Amino acid sequence: MFRITPVKNGLCSIDGIYADGVNGGFKKEGFDVGFIRSEKEMDVVYLFTTNKFQAAPIKYVLRENIKKTNFVLANSKNANALTGEEGINDIKEILNYLSQKTNVVNPIMSSTGVIGVRIDKEKIKNAIDKFDFNAKNSENFAKAIMTTDSFHKEIAFEVEGKFGKFKIAGVAKGAGMINPAMATMLCFIVTDANIPENEMREILKEVNENTFNAISVDGDTSTNDSVFLMTTRDGGYEKEAFKQALNHVMLKLATDIVRDGEGANKLVAFEVKGAKNRNEAKIAAKALTNSLLVKTAIFGEDPNWGRIASTIGASGVECDENALSIKIGDVLVYERGKIYFDKVTEEKAHNVMKKDSFKIEVDLGMGDGEFRAFGCDLSYDYVKINAEYRT
Amino acid sequence: MFRITPVKNGLCSIDGIYADGVNGGFKKEGFDVGFIRSEKEMDVVYLFTTNKFQAAPIKYVLRENIKKTNFVLANSKNANALTGEEGINDIKEILNYLSQKTNVVNPIMSSTGVIGVRIDKEKIKNAIDKFDFNAKNSENFAKAIMTTDSFHKEIAFEVEGKFGKFKIAGVAKGAGMINPAMATMLCFIVTDANIPENEMREILKEVNENTFNAISVDGDTSTNDSVFLMTTRDGGYEKEAFKQALNHVMLKLATDIVRDGEGANKLVAFEVKGAKNRNEAKIAAKALTNSLLVKTAIFGEDPNWGRIASTIGASGVECDENALSIKIGDVLVYERGKIYFDKVTEEKAHNVMKKDSFKIEVDLGMGDGEFRAFGCDLSYDYVKINAEYRT
Repeated sequence: MFRITPVKNGLCSIDGIYADGVNGGFKKEGFDVGFIRSEKEMDVVYLFTTNKFQAAPIKYVLRENIKKTNFVLANSKNANALTGEEGINDIKEILNYLSQKTNVVNPIMSSTGVIGVRIDKEKIKNAIDKFDFNAKNSENFAKAIMTTDSFHKEIAFEVEGKFGKFKIAGVAKGAGMINPAMATMLCFIVTDANIPENEMREILKEVNENTFNAISVDGDTSTNDSVFLMTTRDGGYEKEAFKQALNHVMLKLATDIVRDGEGANKLVAFEVKGAKNRNEAKIAAKALTNSLLVKTAIFGEDPNWGRIASTIGASGVECDENALSIKIGDVLVYERGKIYFDKVTEEKAHNVMKKDSFKIEVDLGMGDGEFRAFGCDLSYDYVKINAEYRT
Repeated sequence: MFRITPVKNGLCSIDGIYADGVNGGFKKEGFDVGFIRSEKEMDVVYLFTTNKFQAAPIKYVLRENIKKTNFVLANSKNANALTGEEGINDIKEILNYLSQKTNVVNPIMSSTGVIGVRIDKEKIKNAIDKFDFNAKNSENFAKAIMTTDSFHKEIAFEVEGKFGKFKIAGVAKGAGMINPAMATMLCFIVTDANIPENEMREILKEVNENTFNAISVDGDTSTNDSVFLMTTRDGGYEKEAFKQALNHVMLKLATDIVRDGEGANKLVAFEVKGAKNRNEAKIAAKALTNSLLVKTAIFGEDPNWGRIASTIGASGVECDENALSIKIGDVLVYERGKIYFDKVTEEKAHNVMKKDSFKIEVDLGMGDGEFRAFGCDLSYDYVKINAEYRT
């Protein structure tokens, strides 16, 4: 038995954790460079993108094999990706500058923004000069990593049980190039839970699979996808409680990312069951999140279930039209070869789709495999944002 | 040596071939039901969608194992897909009605439009009543199969050589749900070439691979994709001449489909070379045609090459940023780890992208695999057309 309660102040709700954001000149106004600092060294584990062109910040962390850290430096507007050895040297120079300003142990740098442009080191150094290392402004950090996000994404919980107490907090950014095959673009989770070292990565991977790896805004997997889990180990720990709390944090941040997907107006849970196995359920669910025709039908609030069926059929999973069933919300529109789509049913399904958030259930009728993926609509604004991204 | 010359009148340029389109009441105005009729029985081969939910017209042709035919009946606005046995019975009833009006041998029905709605048999019968079976209006047939297409797609050639003469003509429709994993939604090719029976299918498959199987508008593979190749055998034949002529027909129709993709303004050839093998080149090229971020950058005429690189990295093919090179048109923007993207280069690349049609070349530097895929931009109009498709 344990209790999970939301708390304020995001990452800074945890003792000994400081964070802030400043304007380094990347954005015309607003925060664009930020930090997370811990009084004591934290254990850190991470999951990175499966994109073959991993960005320089990711390569740096992997090369240095960082397992303990007390500092994360993050920026938006430049991804430092496809920048080769020079990109890594830029990070070294920046972190060296940082080390002259405050006590850092294995600092981590994390970047998001345009791919294929060298990072402006002077702007980052300029930002470092502005840092108040004792600030407790988690929200400003969350804002500093935003690109096309329309709101900052932050959540924190306190968990209490027989084992004592711990806190867990997370910050993420999303918006575009979201089809994480690992984690999504920049997520930082800090806790004081006393997690056994050998369990940290395993739990992060497990929870990630149903949260960040289950979302898509546009089917594009970025070069910078990263999720970091860091702990000060000052608090209590119980495995099940921690897993649930971490799931709360990651699911909230992941669905916030979809809800705030570029141009997105609707959050849709695609619940696929009855697949041959879990992997096939995942393939089908992800195909639905990525079908432009399904996404535009959702934008149009049109219960065009034929597109849902067609996407399943094209996804390559084992299926049969006489075993397939489809529900929009709770409205059954197709069941094992029978079409339920008279005017009344269509109107009911249309009403479900008018909501900001709803589910689409697909039963393949082939086995026990289940997977839930989260997707959104495709609107004019997605096109606008991405046609004008660099201007 | 042979000569390929364009000729007029599409399918009806071939002796003994009749075609027309009428309004059966599916569309408010314009043609929506059409036919192709041959005086003599034609040999026919076909390639159908890999979507697991093949539409009723496809199932019917496969069940009846049709190898010779003298009649094709086609309609738009309803795909007769996901309609089960009833969908097939509807076809039988319609073709039975047709057989009372004219002499038909193994007639083929072919449909395109909304998925998951029973076809209105009375409208089709009504159209059949209006048919003039001796009409030679190929263009009207091409118009009758249009859905969201903005122009009809038709082409015909005469081929002359030592072997004598033959004609070849094709008609297709496209616009949306275009990522053919076989052929595209409805293409009919008629010839009088005296092709050996055992070569027909092999040649069609081979040419299809670099034409219809190389295009994408939106990454969605339809339930109705079909390409039919039919011959009266009245003319001459030479294998190489026929393959080249068929390639002309299919490449023209395939690129017309992309050019006329829903909301599309630009036709882009993605030429991938240096892949580990041909299959990897195809995966990378198709990934580029389907990346929303690449497509919106094309719409915005933004030479954001980082998105091209990121898509390659996420596609799963073997690649390395120090081996990769990217050209937009003839403008080199990235070469084996070096970024060439100063203001002058950017302006040049932007000028290439202002054109209606251009190429993007990617050299993976890993091997000899090559593939060229055709894609288009993603515009506001794609979203509009598909959000409002059924209204």
